[in-house]
Amino acid sequence: MAEHLVKFDTSAAPVSVPSGTLITEAAVQAGVDINQPCGGQGRCGRCAVQINAGNVRRRSVLRLSQTDIKSGYALACQSVVEGDVEISVPPQEKIERRLTTDRVVAEVRAPHGYNPTLAQTITRIPLSITPPDIDDQSDDWSRVQTVLRQQAGLNEVVVSIETLRTIGNALRAGDWQVTAVVDNVTWDCPGCPARLIDLIPGHIPADEPLWGVAIDIGTTTVSLLLVDLLTGEVRAQVAEYNGQIARGEDVISRIIYAAKDGGSRHLQQMVLETIEELIDRASKRIKIKPTDISKATISGNSTMIHLLLGIPAESIRLTPFVTAVNHVPSLTAAEVGIGIHPNGTVDCLPGVASYVGADITAGVLSSGLDDTKSLTLFMDVGTNGETVLGSQEWLVTCACSAGPAFEGAGVMHGMRATKGAIEEVWINGYTLEPTYRVIGGGKPRGVCGSGLISLLAEMFMTGVVDKAGRLNLSSESERIRGGSHGREYVVAWGTETQDGKDIVITHVDIDNLLRAKAAIYAGFSVLAKSVGVPLESVEQVLIGGSFGKYINVEKAIQIGLLPDMPWDKYKFLGNTSVLGAYYGLLGKDMRNRISEIAQKMTYIELSADNTFYDAFMSAMFLPHTDLTNFPTVAGALPATSPDRRKEG
Amino acid sequence: MAEHLVKFDTSAAPVSVPSGTLITEAAVQAGVDINQPCGGQGRCGRCAVQINAGNVRRRSVLRLSQTDIKSGYALACQSVVEGDVEISVPPQEKIERRLTTDRVVAEVRAPHGYNPTLAQTITRIPLSITPPDIDDQSDDWSRVQTVLRQQAGLNEVVVSIETLRTIGNALRAGDWQVTAVVDNVTWDCPGCPARLIDLIPGHIPADEPLWGVAIDIGTTTVSLLLVDLLTGEVRAQVAEYNGQIARGEDVISRIIYAAKDGGSRHLQQMVLETIEELIDRASKRIKIKPTDISKATISGNSTMIHLLLGIPAESIRLTPFVTAVNHVPSLTAAEVGIGIHPNGTVDCLPGVASYVGADITAGVLSSGLDDTKSLTLFMDVGTNGETVLGSQEWLVTCACSAGPAFEGAGVMHGMRATKGAIEEVWINGYTLEPTYRVIGGGKPRGVCGSGLISLLAEMFMTGVVDKAGRLNLSSESERIRGGSHGREYVVAWGTETQDGKDIVITHVDIDNLLRAKAAIYAGFSVLAKSVGVPLESVEQVLIGGSFGKYINVEKAIQIGLLPDMPWDKYKFLGNTSVLGAYYGLLGKDMRNRISEIAQKMTYIELSADNTFYDAFMSAMFLPHTDLTNFPTVAGALPATSPDRRKEG
Repeated sequence: MAEHLVKFDTSAAPVSVPSGTLITEAAVQAGVDINQPCGGQGRCGRCAVQINAGNVRRRSVLRLSQTDIKSGYALACQSVVEGDVEISVPPQEKIERRLTTDRVVAEVRAPHGYNPTLAQTITRIPLSITPPDIDDQSDDWSRVQTVLRQQAGLNEVVVSIETLRTIGNALRAGDWQVTAVVDNVTWDCPGCPARLIDLIPGHIPADEPLWGVAIDIGTTTVSLLLVDLLTGEVRAQVAEYNGQIARGEDVISRIIYAAKDGGSRHLQQMVLETIEELIDRASKRIKIKPTDISKATISGNSTMIHLLLGIPAESIRLTPFVTAVNHVPSLTAAEVGIGIHPNGTVDCLPGVASYVGADITAGVLSSGLDDTKSLTLFMDVGTNGETVLGSQEWLVTCACSAGPAFEGAGVMHGMRATKGAIEEVWINGYTLEPTYRVIGGGKPRGVCGSGLISLLAEMFMTGVVDKAGRLNLSSESERIRGGSHGREYVVAWGTETQDGKDIVITHVDIDNLLRAKAAIYAGFSVLAKSVGVPLESVEQVLIGGSFGKYINVEKAIQIGLLPDMPWDKYKFLGNTSVLGAYYGLLGKDMRNRISEIAQKMTYIELSADNTFYDAFMSAMFLPHTDLTNFPTVAGALPATSPDRRKEG
Repeated sequence: MAEHLVKFDTSAAPVSVPSGTLITEAAVQAGVDINQPCGGQGRCGRCAVQINAGNVRRRSVLRLSQTDIKSGYALACQSVVEGDVEISVPPQEKIERRLTTDRVVAEVRAPHGYNPTLAQTITRIPLSITPPDIDDQSDDWSRVQTVLRQQAGLNEVVVSIETLRTIGNALRAGDWQVTAVVDNVTWDCPGCPARLIDLIPGHIPADEPLWGVAIDIGTTTVSLLLVDLLTGEVRAQVAEYNGQIARGEDVISRIIYAAKDGGSRHLQQMVLETIEELIDRASKRIKIKPTDISKATISGNSTMIHLLLGIPAESIRLTPFVTAVNHVPSLTAAEVGIGIHPNGTVDCLPGVASYVGADITAGVLSSGLDDTKSLTLFMDVGTNGETVLGSQEWLVTCACSAGPAFEGAGVMHGMRATKGAIEEVWINGYTLEPTYRVIGGGKPRGVCGSGLISLLAEMFMTGVVDKAGRLNLSSESERIRGGSHGREYVVAWGTETQDGKDIVITHVDIDNLLRAKAAIYAGFSVLAKSVGVPLESVEQVLIGGSFGKYINVEKAIQIGLLPDMPWDKYKFLGNTSVLGAYYGLLGKDMRNRISEIAQKMTYIELSADNTFYDAFMSAMFLPHTDLTNFPTVAGALPATSPDRRKEG
């Protein structure tokens, strides 16, 4: 096959590729970074590059205008090289740091009644070993085994080849006084022997910290807590965007990217780099070496866990939606590629189903849902809208494909909750003029999830949109207009914004937001119905997920995202997933509880019949087809509202 | 520190190294091969290179003549770079293939009464798995676990991360009909669960071979048997020189080389390459893929096992001579770096001590020594002279540092048993003229081990040397002369030899041979004494080791290497180590027996007191100080022999 030279306008050297190679593939080869937020499906248009010379064939030009195409633009993920080409790569959007990445969990404390010295499975054992002499020539490893048996009661201890390589030096460097770091319990194999993680020269003082990390791999953000396993104290909290974002904003895009040639390895590398950076940052903060860390627990949705481990995730997105593995066996850091001690234990918490992963079982544990007598609804308001209903008696769960609208994707001026995002909006009921608050102050760049909920609620409550989400064109406000993308409402004029262009919300955006909120509402409605429990009997609603923290309950109820209940029934728990990973790190009692939770949760597949679809269609209105479900909203609608009048 | 440019006269690119770098280190960096048969100790002189330009500092010039030094020669392992240099590397001696590498073991058959279908721990299990649907969304791995429990009674099966990556595709490619390859038993952990090695799409016919390899890593030669585990049939036998030879002829040299910077990794790589080549060769011969092989057992001396696994071996050569590990835990091929199936089991057989390794326990098993009622002496006549004495009741063992004289090292014209080696010598008792047989016919290049035994015996029996090994200069034969290296006997005139130079045996060579044979004789004498058994009561002598095969018993007795017993008590077993590895491969009964043997063998440390030294000094004569121990030799000495007269 003919080879062509591809030259990028970066410092990268030109690469030679066969005819028919995608520009994104050539870019990987050349080491040029091109973001693909949709995972390379040609849906988002954000991988557009400019062809300055040479031939490419555009398989799709979705999201490119005729002018774009005339100017030479092509979608890198949809265009193949058919001759020598020269390509300009526009500056790639860098993901900005969240304002306060390092306060992941508002308040981390060990669970009630927890005693880490009893429950912790990682132990440090000081050993005094008889040195060999000419009358006792037994080998180093059998000496260690003998003493572990005699001094620690461990009859069987397994050792890795890496540790075998180090024990001879450790014994002699410590003059036959050493400290063994041992993991006593293997989660997936209770009958298995203890495992020697390390043999360290000398005796380590008993009160010196023993380090572990709890990691939550979110689709968007990876959070990490560095913990002293002896006391349960959290010594550092760090978080960072998941490096995979540049190759897919949501799990589906990532699964699609992973299925491409080399994609899986690439995504795995990206998240491992994020984790490495977090471990480094946390370790530096308290002046330890990453290899001083003996254990990691990992939480995250099923796709994140599969991608971390390099396990094909394709079956997650294809009917009948099954994972390769829900209960990942206990692994070592070297096997996973995480830069703590290579023999350190890596424990991926168990998930329940393709879309109810370890993040949710961890959330159930850390929220105490499995231990409460009150009928409780637990929700993760995100792309997959995972919901759990139950108490200490029983647990049912479901997930609905809400889509990433509340994360700013699929919304023209949507963006993540970073500097420059409008996070709250108020609309004057008479003038329909908005005021807003911008994260970090200054000029706005777009609207984040909480801003979109706020905006939609205000638009509805002031009549800018009607019950069906239609913009009221009969209004006199110049903010409601027919734009190039159809009807839209201007949230900020160009004079106020960072790039000088109007920030608007279009009728397409509103439709996407309606779909997202309807899916979530339909999810927990169907869940309650499936066990014959009326929503009103729910005694508390726990909202997990870092996005949840920023939701304004009143406004979320006004758009029908959350059920109409007294606000004091709502509790916002923040990142319940990393908190569950932290609990799981603390010891075997908590870890066993997570496995029990995963076993106990009954998964309801919403696509199995029409129940969900019917509930979804009923919820495609503001706040809902049936206003009787939302009495406080109905009461708050202005008398002029056509919706109020209709119902009244 | 100053950097200097080192240029070799090979195709290698010049390399830049800091001042003070050894030439051998620079060579490694440049990818230039320089043999170091003594492991880089500066003892053998075989790494000499010529400095054409620039400065090197010679730390040692041992084995170099003044002429050599004037011509610019330097020992690469003892000379450091102190400026830009240009170096000529003489052609490096390539190790020639043994004439018949591929008949390792004369006759391989499964042990008596062996039933592989009962004993084999590796099994292939056909599984029929219920595919998932929307009503049953459990994950792939739990489906496999369920069926392994229901259809094969395996309640707990562990799986590696690599296998987890493949099961999803395997299940779908086989349309939910798959074959599991499982290892049911872990040697070092009987309580541990079974291990899934592979999941293969489709059902494999029950009679299709299940492959395993038995490997013996000799210091000189690596041997491999490719075996059908279902029948025990050996389908291919291959052998090759151990690639480590270029970095040390004997175990001590290798340990020294391994302790150098990067040396351990280098030696590990070298033997792994040898093993890879053997696996490839054997696999090609019967048209299978190396990854079709599910299991490997490995035998070898303790140093070879440590170097294979990259475990520091330094403590083996330093008092009190202990290994890092005698019982290596069960490993996977990926962990060891052997190119069979990455999840295949690698079982390194257990050793007893630093100088009584797995090769000897394997030898005891395959020779049946642990199962015989007859008092038996088992010997591996080699550098380390390992000896075992006992029967089914008890076993004692020792090793003596015989040195590599019988392998051709430390003897001026010594060489390995390859083409061109004199392997047998006869000397005319009157003329003292020798005749000899050369391996492969043609002109001789040197004398191999069996040739040296033969030569020494003939020299003694014909009076060329006396009882103390002194050359009889009073003889009229021009073959006995004072050469440049002192007294010597000419075995072949230059006119008969390959390089046109005389092949001689010098008084230093004779002394080295005497030391080697005396050490071995002293070893088994002390062993017998230690358990109060007279040597005469030994009912059979089993000689293992590939060198053993070529020993002429009569001549070995004449020089006092072997005890003076009726020849029919001697049995030459060939490579008992690879045979033991083969037995161990066949199943758990045999494998358990090897562990029992290792446990049962009492190791006697010869350096613990003076007993060995005294026995060694007494054996430093031909055949021995005490001729009454060698009645047949005494009787065969010619009447003219001063030794006979003295005794007579």
